[in-house]
Amino acid sequence: MKAIYPGSFDPVTNGHFDVIERAAGIFDELIVGVLTNSSKTPLFTVEERIGMLEHLLKDFPNVSIKSFGGLLIDFAHEEGAGVLVRGLRAVTDFEYELQLSQTNKVIAPDVNTIFLTTNLKYSYLSSSIVKEIASYGGDISQFLDPYVEERVRAKYSTGGDRK
Amino acid sequence: MKAIYPGSFDPVTNGHFDVIERAAGIFDELIVGVLTNSSKTPLFTVEERIGMLEHLLKDFPNVSIKSFGGLLIDFAHEEGAGVLVRGLRAVTDFEYELQLSQTNKVIAPDVNTIFLTTNLKYSYLSSSIVKEIASYGGDISQFLDPYVEERVRAKYSTGGDRK
Amino acid sequence: MKAIYPGSFDPVTNGHFDVIERAAGIFDELIVGVLTNSSKTPLFTVEERIGMLEHLLKDFPNVSIKSFGGLLIDFAHEEGAGVLVRGLRAVTDFEYELQLSQTNKVIAPDVNTIFLTTNLKYSYLSSSIVKEIASYGGDISQFLDPYVEERVRAKYSTGGDRK
Amino acid sequence: MKAIYPGSFDPVTNGHFDVIERAAGIFDELIVGVLTNSSKTPLFTVEERIGMLEHLLKDFPNVSIKSFGGLLIDFAHEEGAGVLVRGLRAVTDFEYELQLSQTNKVIAPDVNTIFLTTNLKYSYLSSSIVKEIASYGGDISQFLDPYVEERVRAKYSTGGDRK
Amino acid sequence: MKAIYPGSFDPVTNGHFDVIERAAGIFDELIVGVLTNSSKTPLFTVEERIGMLEHLLKDFPNVSIKSFGGLLIDFAHEEGAGVLVRGLRAVTDFEYELQLSQTNKVIAPDVNTIFLTTNLKYSYLSSSIVKEIASYGGDISQFLDPYVEERVRAKYSTGGDRK
Amino acid sequence: MKAIYPGSFDPVTNGHFDVIERAAGIFDELIVGVLTNSSKTPLFTVEERIGMLEHLLKDFPNVSIKSFGGLLIDFAHEEGAGVLVRGLRAVTDFEYELQLSQTNKVIAPDVNTIFLTTNLKYSYLSSSIVKEIASYGGDISQFLDPYVEERVRAKYSTGGDRK
Repeated sequence: MKAIYPGSFDPVTNGHFDVIERAAGIFDELIVGVLTNSSKTPLFTVEERIGMLEHLLKDFPNVSIKSFGGLLIDFAHEEGAGVLVRGLRAVTDFEYELQLSQTNKVIAPDVNTIFLTTNLKYSYLSSSIVKEIASYGGDISQFLDPYVEERVRAKYSTGGDRK
Repeated sequence: MKAIYPGSFDPVTNGHFDVIERAAGIFDELIVGVLTNSSKTPLFTVEERIGMLEHLLKDFPNVSIKSFGGLLIDFAHEEGAGVLVRGLRAVTDFEYELQLSQTNKVIAPDVNTIFLTTNLKYSYLSSSIVKEIASYGGDISQFLDPYVEERVRAKYSTGGDRK
Repeated sequence: MKAIYPGSFDPVTNGHFDVIERAAGIFDELIVGVLTNSSKTPLFTVEERIGMLEHLLKDFPNVSIKSFGGLLIDFAHEEGAGVLVRGLRAVTDFEYELQLSQTNKVIAPDVNTIFLTTNLKYSYLSSSIVKEIASYGGDISQFLDPYVEERVRAKYSTGGDRK
Repeated sequence: MKAIYPGSFDPVTNGHFDVIERAAGIFDELIVGVLTNSSKTPLFTVEERIGMLEHLLKDFPNVSIKSFGGLLIDFAHEEGAGVLVRGLRAVTDFEYELQLSQTNKVIAPDVNTIFLTTNLKYSYLSSSIVKEIASYGGDISQFLDPYVEERVRAKYSTGGDRK
Repeated sequence: MKAIYPGSFDPVTNGHFDVIERAAGIFDELIVGVLTNSSKTPLFTVEERIGMLEHLLKDFPNVSIKSFGGLLIDFAHEEGAGVLVRGLRAVTDFEYELQLSQTNKVIAPDVNTIFLTTNLKYSYLSSSIVKEIASYGGDISQFLDPYVEERVRAKYSTGGDRK
Repeated sequence: MKAIYPGSFDPVTNGHFDVIERAAGIFDELIVGVLTNSSKTPLFTVEERIGMLEHLLKDFPNVSIKSFGGLLIDFAHEEGAGVLVRGLRAVTDFEYELQLSQTNKVIAPDVNTIFLTTNLKYSYLSSSIVKEIASYGGDISQFLDPYVEERVRAKYSTGGDRK
């Protein structure tokens, strides 16, 4: 079974990595789908985000990274994926995810959404909180891979105003 | 008892229609109140939204459609309505609705808010998700009345950028 | 429109009274339905519970009190009631109520469930918490009508073991 | 990947069947695990519950039915299953399931729990609500397979007390 | 023990005052921390917000008011505060607060977050709802101290467009 | 300020210990209150539970352990405690805790309830889940202090049937 794990990954955190590692162990093939058409201004370009993911996931033979725009369901059909993987953090998450999952099921009954709970250590983590902390020069080493951390620090040290 | 069902209806979905149909069966008179001063840029003008509602509700003798700005409570007093009707989808909804309902009760103790649960088939549905899908050319026929669907498609096919 | 407000009312609290008062103002006729077949051992007999409700509601001309066993939906059909009224306290409540309401809707599509939020002052209140406090001789005067309070005190002072 | 879908199945509902059908499409092999040591008195014996499941699932070549006592995690290890499948209905469910899933993850880091959302049509359904309705002679035909429905009716018509 | 109660206080409501009063009774010293770098355009300047707080809190000898930018945790360290105080209104609040509290605990294990539930009377209250009502000329006297109410009214009567 | 941390502690887990450690750092004096009148049949006697707590907490000079029956609020008044400490795990917890805290506030306005979030590592943990696992001979070493673990094992190895 081929599965897709979609997200913005701006940047990829230890929480995302934990979900990818588990999903790669469950499914024959896993595509990490990087969303290109987010409404928010991202910190990293799509290419930079894919670059960091590729560095982190180079030792997972059944994981590939691809970008996509448009509807997730169309992307799943193009790739021949029958499963969408979502990480769950909290109740608020769950409600929204449930809504998305039910809408997708109506449009494309052949694609199932499965939820994986995040490791407790990362259950509070989000890319935006990490960026918020980094923008004030706070310590983000426990939330990101060193390779990713370095790139986040570089973004904020080049005199950029925080968003 | 006269009741008001307020909303943006941008556009009216099958979920809204389900709530209107139930409320029209419970109360002597039902006013569908179209909010004019929403902070978000709507897809349809107030006139277009009222037009679609009038088309859909022409066979309900005890339902009328009116636009309103300002406070919902002031609108209820002007119309002599003693009940506000709200559709409920999920827990997140419920929390926000509860907050609004309690604030309204303090300002206007003579007006009660009642909640109707949406039919399960439509419990995941929202105008924004429908617009998101339509903007990518996805299939929205299961979410909208054909009359409304045609008008949504027209908006997105006239070369307009989505957002 | 005729409505039913079902419950155990063991005993009726100020929170129940608040819901009854609002519902009596919204609907033409309101039946307070006292559940006879609860699994838990009640503090008051059905007759005692009806007696207290009758005392409290004697000035509401459009409210009547009846006991019922079996399915709530069958009771609604027998009485010709088209609406079930439920008071809402908290999120946990909401989930369970939603489940009941959806099941009822499938069995009897002609009966609608509406939710009324409780006055904030009583939003934490439940018959079981009141009984727990009373069993230790705590002060329950802010939660019950004096007529009801006296009867609860009597139950616990006659040497009865608390449950 | 081999997966286990554990439960009491007292009796199996259309909601359970929906989850089994989806999971059987996702995983190479699916074991439906019937819990023998539930604290509650079941309506059906373990043998009867397995019998109904076998009847319903006879056309799924990659699904088998087994009973288990003790810890779910021990059962998963014995069967060489790397995934536990859980159906999700509502927020209250989610919290409890999350707690179980995290505890299991600490005891057995090699086994992952995945969540599948139930079809909206069955999202309100539970074995206990179905038994409650059946005990009063209510209509349960929309919730159960005819084969299961007949057996539930037989249980309640043989003069048995409900509960 | 020294504690910090952080917030935007744009403006301070009766709900905030209730939390401050309780926290001042629990801790030896309480700092009300006024956030300067909020992303939203505030109605009042930081100086105005501090001015209103100082007026309201002049009789609390162990409470002081200070503004802060950057990370809350850095502010706590500078002030030598070991506790962060948060008021809780609803479940949605709780999820977000939990996330913040857990992130702060990882960055600064020496600082604890404690939650105080708001008085029921104010449990529905928020600065933005009060501003929304005031912008339409609605009655806000039950939500704010008269001193604060007068300043909010002044803002909206000087011909300013509502936000 | 003197605080009480009430509970059944049947037995004390690493999650309880985490809350006690934090609360002891925040308040001048902390009383761990062991509930004697729980409705459930406990695994350990009150004396055994106090014994385990005393062993674990012998190095905390400002922590004492006492048993209590009746209303928590009466216990707080007898001890002159102005704060009740509660650990929070999940949303379901929160709702129930909120209800208790609001009821207590009405009966005894001089006593405040504060909530401490549990360390993420222990956020899924409960005494009943630990007992469930131990009853099947599962590994509980990550959830309990070795001193407590030994006593739990002894209870289940003496041929006792699990509950």
